[in-house]
This record gives sequence, C-alpha cells and structure tokens, in this order.
Amino acid sequence: MALVIPASNSSMRSDRNTYVGKRFVHVKNAYLDSMDEDILYHLDLGTKTHNLLAMFGDVKFVCVGGSPNRMKAFALFMHKELGLEEAEEDIKDICAGTDRYCMYKTGPVLTISHVMVIPSISIMLHELITLLHHARCYDVTIIRIGTSGGIGIAPGTVVITDIAVDSFFKPRFEQVILDNIVTRSTELDKELSEELFNCSKEIPNFPTLIGHTMCTYDFYEGQGRLDGALCSFSRDKKLDYLKRAYKAGVRNIEMESTVFTAMCGLCGLKAAVVCVTLLNRLDCDQINLPHDVLVEYQQRPQLLISNFIRRRLGLCD
Amino acid sequence: MALVIPASNSSMRSDRNTYVGKRFVHVKNAYLDSMDEDILYHLDLGTKTHNLLAMFGDVKFVCVGGSPNRMKAFALFMHKELGLEEAEEDIKDICAGTDRYCMYKTGPVLTISHVMVIPSISIMLHELITLLHHARCYDVTIIRIGTSGGIGIAPGTVVITDIAVDSFFKPRFEQVILDNIVTRSTELDKELSEELFNCSKEIPNFPTLIGHTMCTYDFYEGQGRLDGALCSFSRDKKLDYLKRAYKAGVRNIEMESTVFTAMCGLCGLKAAVVCVTLLNRLDCDQINLPHDVLVEYQQRPQLLISNFIRRRLGLCD
Repeated sequence: MALVIPASNSSMRSDRNTYVGKRFVHVKNAYLDSMDEDILYHLDLGTKTHNLLAMFGDVKFVCVGGSPNRMKAFALFMHKELGLEEAEEDIKDICAGTDRYCMYKTGPVLTISHVMVIPSISIMLHELITLLHHARCYDVTIIRIGTSGGIGIAPGTVVITDIAVDSFFKPRFEQVILDNIVTRSTELDKELSEELFNCSKEIPNFPTLIGHTMCTYDFYEGQGRLDGALCSFSRDKKLDYLKRAYKAGVRNIEMESTVFTAMCGLCGLKAAVVCVTLLNRLDCDQINLPHDVLVEYQQRPQLLISNFIRRRLGLCD
Repeated sequence: MALVIPASNSSMRSDRNTYVGKRFVHVKNAYLDSMDEDILYHLDLGTKTHNLLAMFGDVKFVCVGGSPNRMKAFALFMHKELGLEEAEEDIKDICAGTDRYCMYKTGPVLTISHVMVIPSISIMLHELITLLHHARCYDVTIIRIGTSGGIGIAPGTVVITDIAVDSFFKPRFEQVILDNIVTRSTELDKELSEELFNCSKEIPNFPTLIGHTMCTYDFYEGQGRLDGALCSFSRDKKLDYLKRAYKAGVRNIEMESTVFTAMCGLCGLKAAVVCVTLLNRLDCDQINLPHDVLVEYQQRPQLLISNFIRRRLGLCD
C-alpha cells in the first residue's frame, strides 16, 4: 500500500504559525519570510531550485541519526515496514549534491543523518526546520535514534530520554548568540516518551528504560575517558564523576541531545531521543563489541521507532 | 619518483617523547601505554588489528579538512603532485570500515576528513594523535585546509591563521574535563604561517593574508546569521558584532580552529590553519557562488599546501 498524506492546504492558514487543530513547524526568525530565495546550503536544497512543498509537505515523522550508512539502512527498513509501492532502488539520497548530510524520504517518514555532535546536528536542524516551515509541514514528530555510552546499565539497553542534561547534570543548553550566552530548556514531550516506552514492551527481549541523557561537547576528556591523546585525571576521578552522573539520574551519554531538544522545543516539533548503549562506562572506555553484536544493538532504536510509526499509522495488527 | 621516508628507529629512543634532534608526536596520557590494546573506534583502526608503525611511521605531513569528497580530491592531487609511482586507483580509504571519517596516505602525506565543527575534529584528533604516537612519528606538520566566512575581505581570499579566537575574540579554547572547565592556548607556529604566506606569493593571482580566525560552536546564531530557523537579533546587532570582530583582528570565521590549535600545541605537532573565504559576512549570510567558482575557491588552500609540501620535500624548481 502506498501511503499518501496530502500536504497542508495553505488557504486554511489563520496566521503564520498556528492552524485550527494543526501544530505547524515554525521558525522563530522575522527575516526568513522576507528573503527572495533561501538556500539551505548544507542540504543542497533551496526555495528557488526545489518545490519544497511538493517534496516534503506530507512529512509527519523525521528520524535523525549520526551515521549516514545507518540512516540509509533505516530508510530502507522503513520502506519495507510501511509496505510502500515505490521500488527500493528509487530511494535516493535527496542531499546527494553535498557530502555534509544525507536524506531519504519513504512515505511520510523523512530520514536524515546529522553526523556526530552538537554543532553538526544544530546546522542540520536549522536547515531542516526551515525546510519543514517552507513545506508547511504540521503535526511533525522528530526522533533522534543513536548510539551512546551507558552508565550503570547493561550494554544493549535502549534509553528513552526524559530530559537531556549537560556536563554539569543541568537540564539546559547554553547557546552562544553573537557574544551572549542564552540558556534554553531541554525538556522533552513526556507523553511521547511514554508512548515509545509502551511500544518497547511489545518487542520481546528488548531492554528499555526511561532516564536522563547527558550530552557532552567531547568524547574523550569531556566523558572521562582514559584512552584519549590527552588525559589529566585519574581513574578514581573518572569513576567519581560517572557515579555522580548516575546519582543525578543520568543513564547514558551522547553528544547531541541538548541542542536537539532545545531547538525542536522552540520550533513546535514534538521530539524524542532514543539511543542504545554500546558499553557500560563504569566498566570500560573502549567499544570492543563483536561486529554482529554491535550491528544488532544499533538496530534496536530503529526497530522501536519502526514499531512506533507503524502503530501511529494504524499499520500494526 | 617514489618517495620513501624511513620510519623512526626505535633504538634511538632516549625517552618517551624526545629524541635527539627529533620532535616526536606525543600523547599526554599516563594510561595509554599500559593498555593491552588500543582501539581507535572512529577510525576503525587498532594496535592489535593493524601494524600502525609500518602503515604510518613515515608520515611527515597531515592535512585535515571537513568534507570527505574534498579531502579525497586533495589526496589524489597530492599523489599527482608528488609524482608517486603507486597507481591512483590503489589510493584507498584507510578508514573504509567506518563512515565517520575518511583517510588517505600518499607518500609522507596523510589526508583525513574531520567532518565539520569542534567536537568532530576533537574526536578525530584524539585518535589521530594517538595513532601517530603508536606509529612513533616525528617532525610532523599538520595543516587544516578548509572553507570559512570572511569579514571585510573579498570572497576567494585565503586566510592563514595567526591565532584562533573564540566567539568573544579571546585566544583560548575552553575544554570541559569531567565537570571542570580548563582554558587552553590557541597560539600557532609563527614561522610556519610565514613560510606558508611566502609560498602563496609564488602563486599568481592568489589573494592571501595572515589574520585572526574566529571559531564558533554554531553556524547560524553563533555567527550572527539572519537566515536560520532561530534568529533573535537585528541586522544592526549582527553587523555591530561582525565589525567588532574585524576590529579585533578577525578576518574569517569557521568552526574548528580553536580546538585544533589547542590539541596540536599540547601534543608536539606544528600546526597551521589555511581557509579560503566563500563570502564576505558584512555583505551577506548565504553562500550562493556559482558552482565552478565555489570549486575553484575550495581548491586554493589545496594548491597552497601542495606547493608548501613540494617545497619542503625539495621537489620545487
């Protein structure tokens, strides 16, 4: 069955960001709509070169993750799971003109790689949110699916984030704007997290929990690793830090969630973060899982999100 | 002519980091040498799975840049410029097992993509510096070649960085270590910058200058752009900020140089940053150059570094 969800009808628009019963993706930028042309440089898309409304108007789910290969695999998986008519080989990278990000569309699901780390996902989100705004998308749910380091939990556990915290265990994202620092909230949609958690219960042997996710600017010194080129702290100091994080409710560590939750929250996107843990940082620093185990772990968030989307679309039994 | 520079002779070693007359790449981590195995996860390399000394012992130049495609093009260009015997099709991505980074080796030149932004280049540098340490490399020069936004200078100008500054125009990199903030110096090697500037004079029609480079954590709000999904400041505030940056000596803006200079400085790597500017931020925010002009601009740092390496290796006329 081919899924076709019609793009929004612009004649229904009552004001710039709100429609009756519809939650539109909106930008918070008074300059944007006055621009003659908007080039989304890192996505290699633009308002004059592409019909963004026709291309993206029916998007209801956006799935973002770090690795380009993994996100392509997810797009192909979703295509199969949604039973779309289009041939698999027709699923092309929409951002093929650039090597910064990749993007695939399968029915109402848009899949994008955001590479690693806060500023990379931030660039992608600025251009993605602007794109969804130009395409008049509404009622969009966005989910980051990724990998992470666990704290005090078994590798392979899927963590659904209830709140993203920074390196100091604070639920905030500090954005530098010109030379000012602005603090933004990193809260997530509780209902969405619980809906995802309920979905996980339907999958056999699928260890899942809801917990805080710590988001750092650095993989080595910033996460207390002893195996980087620079390490100025002792093993005891590292363990003390990670245990304090655990006590504060942190169950996993990654490098994107604070800016992701802050930006999505400001722009009317219901957002969730679902990351599998690849190691328990109280035990080790290096990721040395056998290849097949690593691949299976990495597929867990994909499986959960596929189930969630199918349930939302009424495609589950 | 095939260039073969022998790897270092370990019998000459007097202590861990210093050799007579040789400046070794060193790590600042007391734990590293006691590890049974070191897996460089994001490079898909390791001390047990790869003979790093044999693979990398002769490296003298490391060139890093954001775009994987651009860095592959640079590796193929260097291969031709150095007149190496190896067939071009034999130049394979050494990190082909991962889609995080790509790496090519052409004679003594190692070329790596670091994707965009501070934390991405930081992960790569931790693993690259550890790799160079395991491979006992010495007298290594590392150069970041990239693209940037210019301030008050014509697009296409190549900026050789004399000092990298943060969003507050300070010559520092603030590294979060566990939950402490440590400030590191971002100074660069003056002689290397001047050598590069002298090289640029030999290339006709090659606008080049030495100036400060501002390194931000964000492409949109952090660099004063009016075209992102979020923008809370006026055009006047933006211009005031960019003009203050210019007055402080900043000539271009990118997202990697502070952590790059800080880490290379700490680990005994002579470093330089050479970026071409794609626009003048006092005039506009969007990069809308014709494709052929963009390509030609992006090649400028590559051309300069190729000339520099050939001169260093005595291959220039």
